[in-house]
Amino acid sequence: MQRLFRPDRIAVVGASATEGKLGYEAMANAVEFAGDVYPVNPSGEGSVFGQPFVDSVTDIEERVDLALLAVPPQVVPGVVEECGEAGVGGAVIYAGGFAEAGEEGEQLQAQVAAVADEYDLALLGPNTSGFIAPASDLMASFAGGVEHLQPGGVTILAQSGGVAHQLAFSAHREGRGIATMVGLGNRANVGFEEAIPYFDSDPQTDAIVLHVEGTDDGRALLEACRESDTPVVAYKVGQSDVGDFAESHTGALTGDHALYTAGFQQYGVPAVESTTALFDAGHALAQSPEPDGANVGVVTAQAGPGIIIADRLQRAGATLPELESATQNRVGDILPGITYAENPVDTGRPMPAFGDVVEAVAEDGNVDIVLLYELFEDALGFPQEALDGLAERVDKPVLVATEGPSESMAEDLDALRAADVPVFTSPERGADAAVALARYAELDAAGADEEVTADA
Amino acid sequence: MQRLFRPDRIAVVGASATEGKLGYEAMANAVEFAGDVYPVNPSGEGSVFGQPFVDSVTDIEERVDLALLAVPPQVVPGVVEECGEAGVGGAVIYAGGFAEAGEEGEQLQAQVAAVADEYDLALLGPNTSGFIAPASDLMASFAGGVEHLQPGGVTILAQSGGVAHQLAFSAHREGRGIATMVGLGNRANVGFEEAIPYFDSDPQTDAIVLHVEGTDDGRALLEACRESDTPVVAYKVGQSDVGDFAESHTGALTGDHALYTAGFQQYGVPAVESTTALFDAGHALAQSPEPDGANVGVVTAQAGPGIIIADRLQRAGATLPELESATQNRVGDILPGITYAENPVDTGRPMPAFGDVVEAVAEDGNVDIVLLYELFEDALGFPQEALDGLAERVDKPVLVATEGPSESMAEDLDALRAADVPVFTSPERGADAAVALARYAELDAAGADEEVTADA
Repeated sequence: MQRLFRPDRIAVVGASATEGKLGYEAMANAVEFAGDVYPVNPSGEGSVFGQPFVDSVTDIEERVDLALLAVPPQVVPGVVEECGEAGVGGAVIYAGGFAEAGEEGEQLQAQVAAVADEYDLALLGPNTSGFIAPASDLMASFAGGVEHLQPGGVTILAQSGGVAHQLAFSAHREGRGIATMVGLGNRANVGFEEAIPYFDSDPQTDAIVLHVEGTDDGRALLEACRESDTPVVAYKVGQSDVGDFAESHTGALTGDHALYTAGFQQYGVPAVESTTALFDAGHALAQSPEPDGANVGVVTAQAGPGIIIADRLQRAGATLPELESATQNRVGDILPGITYAENPVDTGRPMPAFGDVVEAVAEDGNVDIVLLYELFEDALGFPQEALDGLAERVDKPVLVATEGPSESMAEDLDALRAADVPVFTSPERGADAAVALARYAELDAAGADEEVTADA
Repeated sequence: MQRLFRPDRIAVVGASATEGKLGYEAMANAVEFAGDVYPVNPSGEGSVFGQPFVDSVTDIEERVDLALLAVPPQVVPGVVEECGEAGVGGAVIYAGGFAEAGEEGEQLQAQVAAVADEYDLALLGPNTSGFIAPASDLMASFAGGVEHLQPGGVTILAQSGGVAHQLAFSAHREGRGIATMVGLGNRANVGFEEAIPYFDSDPQTDAIVLHVEGTDDGRALLEACRESDTPVVAYKVGQSDVGDFAESHTGALTGDHALYTAGFQQYGVPAVESTTALFDAGHALAQSPEPDGANVGVVTAQAGPGIIIADRLQRAGATLPELESATQNRVGDILPGITYAENPVDTGRPMPAFGDVVEAVAEDGNVDIVLLYELFEDALGFPQEALDGLAERVDKPVLVATEGPSESMAEDLDALRAADVPVFTSPERGADAAVALARYAELDAAGADEEVTADA
């Protein structure tokens, strides 16, 4: 899989010089890569994006690591065979018309998988929009606009290429980066259980987020999650009956949602209920020290959003512990007559001492995770100085939820993000991210106990 | 209340020339208003923002409609008395230290309310950040950045000023406008049951969204919702035990969450579970023709997000009806070999004919609400031509959920918004808005039946 996801040389089979064609779009993205990129098409004349066409991957002298197949489904088995002969390490198959499209397609996919297995070739797809690794400008996708994506610590493993792009573009809109974005599609031989361990050992990946419709082997997926040292968060779709539509999509049975949920719970995977919550949780985990426990300390500059946060945390089973009396005294000294000094600590308005209050709560021994909410006010901004390096220093996640006039807060938001502070633009999103951290801490602790028991 | 929310002349009592002071910030916002604005402060010298200080509201020759009180709690009763003597119609009380702050505060608030009642003066607050009506540049708030807010059809009635601002700024970030944003605070004599009927009859308000922590008279709130011809959506906070913190906030008991939920259900108010879902639902209702029923027709250009939408709609109890056979034939004619032609209709990718498919589904007799999802592709954009005026023509809500590279889609998003198409940047948000429309249609139908029964 290393050659699939971290190639030195790429071939685009079915490359085209005609704008709008899949083989053109795939080539347009691929040429941004720093390594060699070969357009392959027996009917191609001259060159495309400055690269001369070759007739077949077997004609390329250098060893190609990754082949992107922008060809119709019927010719895929032959092209995969040629890739195998040429010693290619991995291939992305964009075409649909395989396991998702009835019996004939299933047979075609089985045929492709057999050829790939013969040559030990890792297949992404078929029926996928590919993958993207912004840090190396590797865009093995035909989608437009992916050149804007920025590097970061979250790897997206989505069963649907569409959902993978939804997650990546949504992250980008909020100034967040991604390590690798993968659309798994039909998972001919690279499924969740293969991709999770690979990205667990990927040095760029600090958290893995999963979008799951269903797999034939749910247990293997869950085992892979349990084995992963890198935090994994999951979004399992298909609680209601969408089996028919889903099967037509990536050839997957959605399976029993309750079993997945119980499995994630058992195997240490926080489960979420939306694309937004999925990336938020991954972002919080990737950007934060690992929490030691599930106790959340909340500091708010406005009580209304604070009540929303407290309510949401409690409903999700997170704990708002009482603060140490030393912390309560310290907060009282900073702000005599403070609005509400329990947990949440509410200052009523942003104020110059807001950062001191945040530090006091972050240093409290009862608190494992810190969440602050502040409606942005231009005159005061964020407590940037207090937040800069705070998570590292106290060795706890410190999350910021906020909103404000987009015009005046943009620069201050960028500064927070530059300091690696995870930011969420609503009280609920901040609370949900804290809940995911709390669940991860609880599950991690439970998992550790389990291992101890197993060893004993 | 007309003089409170739609004044011709404003006085800012406690106006200050010292930057950073509440009386300065309130004045800075107030002077954007087109009508007369009088700074009132007996210790004020000269002028502020070009307006000469006066000693008391009773010294102003013209009749003042609205007084903004940027004064400490202890002097509020006296100032309200002066306002009454001067014939002021309404006052906003920013100060805290009233019913939310224990017994003494409660007495102070009762005293203020009694004075106001004597003079028939409508009080917003105390303990509020005020209100904002962008269409008339009326910013009766001390918060910064509110001058960026744009006019629109949704009125926000939030118990918390902080939540009101969260909702308004969040709307603004997404290019949405508001009719009026109100933070009710302690509701001395203007509460939900007074504000809802007022904004129901406000010509600028097409939908009302409520943020409720709790009131002393839940029944009056629910009755006001039922009486409203303008659609109302509610977000009731406080399902878990946050009573202590909440009471310290706006002096409210959160009450029994289950009773509120049942009440909203009974009285025709879709209830949501986040600030994002609240404004999304209000935006969808304000921008759309009233749906005749709860049947949702879904069109997707990517199956993965389509499955998320179908799942979420079904889980929330919305119906995805079978399409008429004429529609199925029509879709089949437009796209022979289409990926999935039931409901959702999935085209697999955006394509030039996507707009035709959307129109076919929108014109289907079984469909009451249309929701489309498209991952934005630069080369094809949105089916702008098909969407322009479609909702009006078919007399049904038509919602768009999307995401894409923020850089390249910005202009096309603006064009959609300019055509009054409600846009949501995730599949889940689009689905949740459709669910709110479906609930409103169901509840509206149930309400109509009830009235018929009552008449008979």
